[in-house]
Amino acid sequence: MLPFSVTILGSSSALPTLSRFPTSQIVNLNEKLFLIDCGEGTQIQLRKYGFKAGKINHIFISHLHGDHIFGLPGLISSMALGGKKGELHIYSHSELKMMMDPLLKFMEEMEDFKVIYHPLNFRSQALIYEDTNLTIESIPLKHRIPCCGFIFREKQHELRLRGELVEYLKIPIRDRVSLKHGADYLKSDGTTIPNNELTFPRDPSRSYAFCTDTLPRKQILPVIKGVDLLYHESTFCDDLKDLALKTYHTTARQAAELGGEAGVKKLIIGHFSSRYKNEKPLVDEARAIFPNTFAANDGSRFDL
Amino acid sequence: MLPFSVTILGSSSALPTLSRFPTSQIVNLNEKLFLIDCGEGTQIQLRKYGFKAGKINHIFISHLHGDHIFGLPGLISSMALGGKKGELHIYSHSELKMMMDPLLKFMEEMEDFKVIYHPLNFRSQALIYEDTNLTIESIPLKHRIPCCGFIFREKQHELRLRGELVEYLKIPIRDRVSLKHGADYLKSDGTTIPNNELTFPRDPSRSYAFCTDTLPRKQILPVIKGVDLLYHESTFCDDLKDLALKTYHTTARQAAELGGEAGVKKLIIGHFSSRYKNEKPLVDEARAIFPNTFAANDGSRFDL
Repeated sequence: MLPFSVTILGSSSALPTLSRFPTSQIVNLNEKLFLIDCGEGTQIQLRKYGFKAGKINHIFISHLHGDHIFGLPGLISSMALGGKKGELHIYSHSELKMMMDPLLKFMEEMEDFKVIYHPLNFRSQALIYEDTNLTIESIPLKHRIPCCGFIFREKQHELRLRGELVEYLKIPIRDRVSLKHGADYLKSDGTTIPNNELTFPRDPSRSYAFCTDTLPRKQILPVIKGVDLLYHESTFCDDLKDLALKTYHTTARQAAELGGEAGVKKLIIGHFSSRYKNEKPLVDEARAIFPNTFAANDGSRFDL
Repeated sequence: MLPFSVTILGSSSALPTLSRFPTSQIVNLNEKLFLIDCGEGTQIQLRKYGFKAGKINHIFISHLHGDHIFGLPGLISSMALGGKKGELHIYSHSELKMMMDPLLKFMEEMEDFKVIYHPLNFRSQALIYEDTNLTIESIPLKHRIPCCGFIFREKQHELRLRGELVEYLKIPIRDRVSLKHGADYLKSDGTTIPNNELTFPRDPSRSYAFCTDTLPRKQILPVIKGVDLLYHESTFCDDLKDLALKTYHTTARQAAELGGEAGVKKLIIGHFSSRYKNEKPLVDEARAIFPNTFAANDGSRFDL
């Protein structure tokens, strides 16, 4: 299976702390890097955790609050200064371009480097990115301003051939390709060998769902059902659920309940309010309900 | 004398490194904080080095390149979230407001907190700020876009009275005030005691000049003449003086020559290109010409 990981670059909510930068994450599928959100200092965190900013070609922005976007001007400028060529694709609310353009007005190094903004639809789930290995869809969330999550799904893997058998039977190349896609093998004598006798079972397709900033939302359950890894914000402990409700955030307990109901395999909680000196009360509260919960800490890496 | 210090929050040039954030400094005169430039991550550096962002009411921006301003939206947002009330004054090129306003559009906590932009004149030296203890003037510099430095000058101190003598002579309060301002003392018998017999010499008025980003500029010599502390950018060593010229920057050698010609007491160099692994070659080069040179490192504090 291809290496597939999520690295937390920032795990704080609105106010950064000495140990937590604001929200940003790198999804790395086989050294193709996808950035989710870009709080202030993201370029510094990328450097700290060993990612080359110039390798990022796709950025996904959940919403336009400052703690999710104020790292963009610096990141884009540094990409340009670093000699990045070609296109950087940013998927976000359509207003982002109007916020960024004035800031990048004085950049002198953007001749061969173009930022392309893709407006997101915040009303319904939508496919927003696709390549050979992966699809990325938006997940509508409920915050004070338009906001969505993102779900990364590996595409169905090709079947792997039972090599020795395929060689022994001298199966032609074009039939091998068909076998990988699930076809049975029609021999020259007119008989058929069923696909499963010539291939191994498919590797499972892995999936990662990122959900911040939002009220806990039952509507996302069918979308995130059974994902390998769910990141869900948990800004507060449940004793502050009224504040969570008022500010359109989720408590650790509520995130754990969602993870449990959706049958996800592993839960990461993050976007912690700066009032918490460490993550322990939030993780303890979530684990009481969903034991396989881990805290997002800056620099943490989760392999799928 | 009042405590008067400069703390370096960021000392890198355009690209931040793992040990250097982009340009920002705090001038602290008796716990009144003045921020100069505000590169990305300034709010994080303030927290790291023990300054309360909410205590800053005056920010001076040398020019509109990203490495000097991209920390502003996050800093302003965090001030608002932290409950800052009243006015924040920002002195900068007039376009800054147009760059910041779209970014702060979604801030919901700015009801009792107002940002006031003061446009700077980049053509001639000008008084831009004054209070009981201090004046701040702009210093025209020469960069690729309009740019200026800032000079902080303590006002002339009041004279300190020779207490025992003043008591012995039973000098009335209103005459003591006049003495502090330099008047001689007219006794009731019509004779006069000269001021210098009743007061100590004035404490010297200290001064700090901040000059970045710029070509080396002889025109600033009369302005910075004899300052206690000069910060001058030294982006490159002198072997890259052609690149310095092309990019409108200064070399360590050139900065040291300016400091020497101006007869400053101490020189700080900074705004180092990220190509230098450490500051040693730059400091060595400058010290060969101006021995009392120190490197700006993030967190360094210089007391005047």
